[in-house]
Amino acid sequence: MTKPLVGIVMGSDSDLPVMAQAANFLERFQVPYEVRILSAHRSPDAALDYARNAAGRGLKVIIAGAGGAAHLAGVLAAVTVLPVIGVPIKTASLGGVDSLYAMVQMPKGIPVATVAIDGAANAAILAAQILAVHDPILQDRLKAFKEELAREVAARDARLAQLGIEGYLREGKK
Amino acid sequence: MTKPLVGIVMGSDSDLPVMAQAANFLERFQVPYEVRILSAHRSPDAALDYARNAAGRGLKVIIAGAGGAAHLAGVLAAVTVLPVIGVPIKTASLGGVDSLYAMVQMPKGIPVATVAIDGAANAAILAAQILAVHDPILQDRLKAFKEELAREVAARDARLAQLGIEGYLREGKK
Amino acid sequence: MTKPLVGIVMGSDSDLPVMAQAANFLERFQVPYEVRILSAHRSPDAALDYARNAAGRGLKVIIAGAGGAAHLAGVLAAVTVLPVIGVPIKTASLGGVDSLYAMVQMPKGIPVATVAIDGAANAAILAAQILAVHDPILQDRLKAFKEELAREVAARDARLAQLGIEGYLREGKK
Amino acid sequence: MTKPLVGIVMGSDSDLPVMAQAANFLERFQVPYEVRILSAHRSPDAALDYARNAAGRGLKVIIAGAGGAAHLAGVLAAVTVLPVIGVPIKTASLGGVDSLYAMVQMPKGIPVATVAIDGAANAAILAAQILAVHDPILQDRLKAFKEELAREVAARDARLAQLGIEGYLREGKK
Amino acid sequence: MTKPLVGIVMGSDSDLPVMAQAANFLERFQVPYEVRILSAHRSPDAALDYARNAAGRGLKVIIAGAGGAAHLAGVLAAVTVLPVIGVPIKTASLGGVDSLYAMVQMPKGIPVATVAIDGAANAAILAAQILAVHDPILQDRLKAFKEELAREVAARDARLAQLGIEGYLREGKK
Amino acid sequence: MTKPLVGIVMGSDSDLPVMAQAANFLERFQVPYEVRILSAHRSPDAALDYARNAAGRGLKVIIAGAGGAAHLAGVLAAVTVLPVIGVPIKTASLGGVDSLYAMVQMPKGIPVATVAIDGAANAAILAAQILAVHDPILQDRLKAFKEELAREVAARDARLAQLGIEGYLREGKK
Amino acid sequence: MTKPLVGIVMGSDSDLPVMAQAANFLERFQVPYEVRILSAHRSPDAALDYARNAAGRGLKVIIAGAGGAAHLAGVLAAVTVLPVIGVPIKTASLGGVDSLYAMVQMPKGIPVATVAIDGAANAAILAAQILAVHDPILQDRLKAFKEELAREVAARDARLAQLGIEGYLREGKK
Amino acid sequence: MTKPLVGIVMGSDSDLPVMAQAANFLERFQVPYEVRILSAHRSPDAALDYARNAAGRGLKVIIAGAGGAAHLAGVLAAVTVLPVIGVPIKTASLGGVDSLYAMVQMPKGIPVATVAIDGAANAAILAAQILAVHDPILQDRLKAFKEELAREVAARDARLAQLGIEGYLREGKK
Repeated sequence: MTKPLVGIVMGSDSDLPVMAQAANFLERFQVPYEVRILSAHRSPDAALDYARNAAGRGLKVIIAGAGGAAHLAGVLAAVTVLPVIGVPIKTASLGGVDSLYAMVQMPKGIPVATVAIDGAANAAILAAQILAVHDPILQDRLKAFKEELAREVAARDARLAQLGIEGYLREGKK
Repeated sequence: MTKPLVGIVMGSDSDLPVMAQAANFLERFQVPYEVRILSAHRSPDAALDYARNAAGRGLKVIIAGAGGAAHLAGVLAAVTVLPVIGVPIKTASLGGVDSLYAMVQMPKGIPVATVAIDGAANAAILAAQILAVHDPILQDRLKAFKEELAREVAARDARLAQLGIEGYLREGKK
Repeated sequence: MTKPLVGIVMGSDSDLPVMAQAANFLERFQVPYEVRILSAHRSPDAALDYARNAAGRGLKVIIAGAGGAAHLAGVLAAVTVLPVIGVPIKTASLGGVDSLYAMVQMPKGIPVATVAIDGAANAAILAAQILAVHDPILQDRLKAFKEELAREVAARDARLAQLGIEGYLREGKK
Repeated sequence: MTKPLVGIVMGSDSDLPVMAQAANFLERFQVPYEVRILSAHRSPDAALDYARNAAGRGLKVIIAGAGGAAHLAGVLAAVTVLPVIGVPIKTASLGGVDSLYAMVQMPKGIPVATVAIDGAANAAILAAQILAVHDPILQDRLKAFKEELAREVAARDARLAQLGIEGYLREGKK
Repeated sequence: MTKPLVGIVMGSDSDLPVMAQAANFLERFQVPYEVRILSAHRSPDAALDYARNAAGRGLKVIIAGAGGAAHLAGVLAAVTVLPVIGVPIKTASLGGVDSLYAMVQMPKGIPVATVAIDGAANAAILAAQILAVHDPILQDRLKAFKEELAREVAARDARLAQLGIEGYLREGKK
Repeated sequence: MTKPLVGIVMGSDSDLPVMAQAANFLERFQVPYEVRILSAHRSPDAALDYARNAAGRGLKVIIAGAGGAAHLAGVLAAVTVLPVIGVPIKTASLGGVDSLYAMVQMPKGIPVATVAIDGAANAAILAAQILAVHDPILQDRLKAFKEELAREVAARDARLAQLGIEGYLREGKK
Repeated sequence: MTKPLVGIVMGSDSDLPVMAQAANFLERFQVPYEVRILSAHRSPDAALDYARNAAGRGLKVIIAGAGGAAHLAGVLAAVTVLPVIGVPIKTASLGGVDSLYAMVQMPKGIPVATVAIDGAANAAILAAQILAVHDPILQDRLKAFKEELAREVAARDARLAQLGIEGYLREGKK
Repeated sequence: MTKPLVGIVMGSDSDLPVMAQAANFLERFQVPYEVRILSAHRSPDAALDYARNAAGRGLKVIIAGAGGAAHLAGVLAAVTVLPVIGVPIKTASLGGVDSLYAMVQMPKGIPVATVAIDGAANAAILAAQILAVHDPILQDRLKAFKEELAREVAARDARLAQLGIEGYLREGKK
């Protein structure tokens, strides 16, 4: 793999099943990335070093997933001027509203670009959109992806017209 | 002003006092911008045209502020591959949690980079960070801004040490 | 089937199990309908075209189901003067409170007639009530339905009196 | 005034400042209406009689505003097949989320078409949309209103372009 | 069974598994009761008749369980001066916070004595406490129950001391 | 004043403006009462002694108002079998949802009859309803009160019919 | 076991699976503890006696777990000057937000040191941190634990680098 | 002032009016303290250095106040084994529930002892309780404070008995 442009970071390996979607989408857009487990609370030095060195190592965007008192994205954003995208992870008790508030409500000066709860796929798409600002080829890939999304919806719409509700629901169970 | 790189859009002129902060911060970073009032619900054609033509007109990032069933950012994001930053505006009834949910919980495929409720300043900083990915001079401005933030906090800390709590609070009232 | 009067639209086929109830209830009231998958975010042109042409094609009411940042109903309502009924779909993280807020908190000028989370059956009944405003036969069907609801409750009440709590709960498990 | 088609009902006269907007909007659309104070809890007989007789008296739509344990709309809907539109009124303690839940979460069989917290204007527009289903002249008025909304937004957008942010905010204070 | 003093009412037979606990506890306190399925929305006449006639039939307290836009308790309380105890039933989407708000936030003049979500057992105990205000024998039963609660806790505490945590958890699985 | 039947207790004198409404309503129903400031946290012994001795002193019902981590009602209920009515007091930060949850969500065995946030008037009415279970004269007073509520609503309804919306709102400002 | 320094108390044995983690962590730090089931509502005398005697018996910190209207920690804190740590237990209906509010929102004068919902492990660590204020050996154990946390994260990070996302997720299933 | 034992830290000088209460209470208990403005996001290095050196400088407890995405307490706790007490500051939009979740929901391994929203006074009392674990004189001061709290409540209770509700409320306005 070529030199990574996006760093996918998560606070715990329990976040990996969700954050893996970010990796999948970056691969789809042919954006080189790396994946790291770094905790704002349990390995703060490693996390801070990572963010401090990120730009120097050639990274352009950081994606950070964390749950509960989800400080990781904010802590990384505090020590880098790279855009930091936050993925609030769903929690067992509060459904992720805790993670969301802890990520999105950043004070003036240090933004975190927050996506939906468990929205790692969208974090990757947003990272690609950011990179595409100066990369026409990547922008074309994103346009193609958008068209594919529309085609997929249209295909499902057509299939529903063909099968009817009962048929569509039955097929879905196969 | 040179050709705008960032479009600041809001759903209603009642959002302007908040969204004006985004303009102030973009000026601070010398990022050319434009400001528009475009409603996803009341002037959908104008809003969609704006987003569809944004990239062609040279815009690189869109900032969209809206409150309540805050669809503006998502509606714009649906028709452009430019990064769209959403500012959920505080509401009289629910404090802006409605705006926040309506912005951040976007479905897979169409991200909105959401910042804090009324966080227009951070939207501008995030826009600058995105532009700075390929603009070392802007990146330096952002680093200088970060250092200034730290200096400001340090200055207040020093002033508190000098004046004491009572003195500081008294001064603050002047 | 005769020309549809009600359009049931959903943002994703994952909403179909819920939205199928709307179809069932419209059939029960003999109200012709059509079902479509159209996304405000992934296929915005198709969705907007659908709503713009709805009245011209003879539709009288639109039912729109969507989850999360549930913009579909509002986006359709922006480009039609037909009544738009919104069904907020339950979400895995926030239970559908996000969908509810994103639907019901519409700005002045563009209402969405919102029903309960996953309340697709009620959306259909509401659509029938709207059509019945000028259709005495349909109004009679709705009255008969209301009486049937009362009879059903009365029958269960009587059965509980007969079987007792234990018996009723045991029967329910059969 | 000609025979009313819409009944605006509220549970308390403290709701009148909000519900008056519904009256204003119905006048704008030339829809005849009546206004009543009827409480589901304090004058239940009057409220139920009102709803039971509404269709017979020629009413086509009922708009009901209530706050807190906002039962009015649901109680009326229980005894009429006319469409009932609910306006959850903002509360001092919970901001109206209590009113909203108590209105929108109706059980299967008895829908309430719920609009935004304090959204009385939208309730009137929705009532007009419902009546317009079989009234082309009213439908034209609604289309004209929609166009006016778009024009208003465009006018503000133009004014902002002319005055700039500072100028616009200053003017707004006059 | 002797003439019932407490009426247990629920809006739907789906509430029966929860509301059965109220019956169990009333039996424990030897308080005669009756159980009814009566819906504020689907069988409003039956529900209102029930509450209007309750005092005349010798009932002293009404317990009402309902979920979602849980109007039943409030609707009954509107037409009787008997104390009405409300049991908010847990809902699939919002966990019962909707039921709770719709029950507890009653307007001035018409109280509903609300207990915990799914708290049917406590509703029965509260009903017994109300009846015991003028029934020393029942009051003694309630005191004995309170002492039994304390003994049960003490017994578990002692068992934990004996078995240790591991042992206690293992036993619990048997 | 004759021997009190209802004890109105509050955790702090800051709750007095709200809890005074309970006293007013008890006077209206000619129910003798006493008012106490007793804190579950700051004066636990006094609070517990009060509840333990309440029945012996002739009290029949306790009304307890508290805010935040509102334990007072539950703590009193733990040591008496008298019915305890809880009034959750509105809080500056969370609007009283904290007080509500801390009161209403009592564990099985120890109910608190919870009324609306700041609902002290309803607490008094509920106390009167409880006492009226065995007091026909008080029951008549409550019926008269209910009729008065209905008359008041009817009077306002009539006044609105006479003055119109504008007139009514104008009068209200006088 | 030597004389306990920490008392782990819970309101119900249903809290034991969660609270057992507190015991595990105290053992890990070699802090002697005891475990008790004591209910603020069902065995208030025992609970209060426990807290009143705790300091005299040599306890230094109390950890209290409770759910719903979680009064236990506050009730204990009312009668001791020992630090009381509260563990809000997750509830079936509200996910533990009720427990959290009922614990953390204590009035001025009586703090409860609240940790995360179901955060019994952290309660133990916090108890150890409190004891370590005057115990350098325990402080060293806590430092070692912190380093171990960092090593664990680093080990997982390294393993992810080695196995890749797919490999890591596959291993996790073994 | 002697060498500080408690460090009061806040993320912004806008938190000072609230956090000043912590200082007041520490003075009351004669606990030496220092006050600092240190931001987890805007001056992360200073904040981390502060926490890393705190124990070495003789500090025993850290109190950290912050609002919104309130990371300060967690970030400090990540790099010290001293007990860290968190004060969630009320926010304009969400009332401080964001600050609360961002503080209290810490992951396993790194506790923050969270007190009520704006509960700086309690943070100071908790800090004193922690120090008092090994300081009998301070423990006596805390006992005296507890007794004073009880006396204050008793004095207000007596004053209410003397003045009556009306009189007490009138006096309160003086």
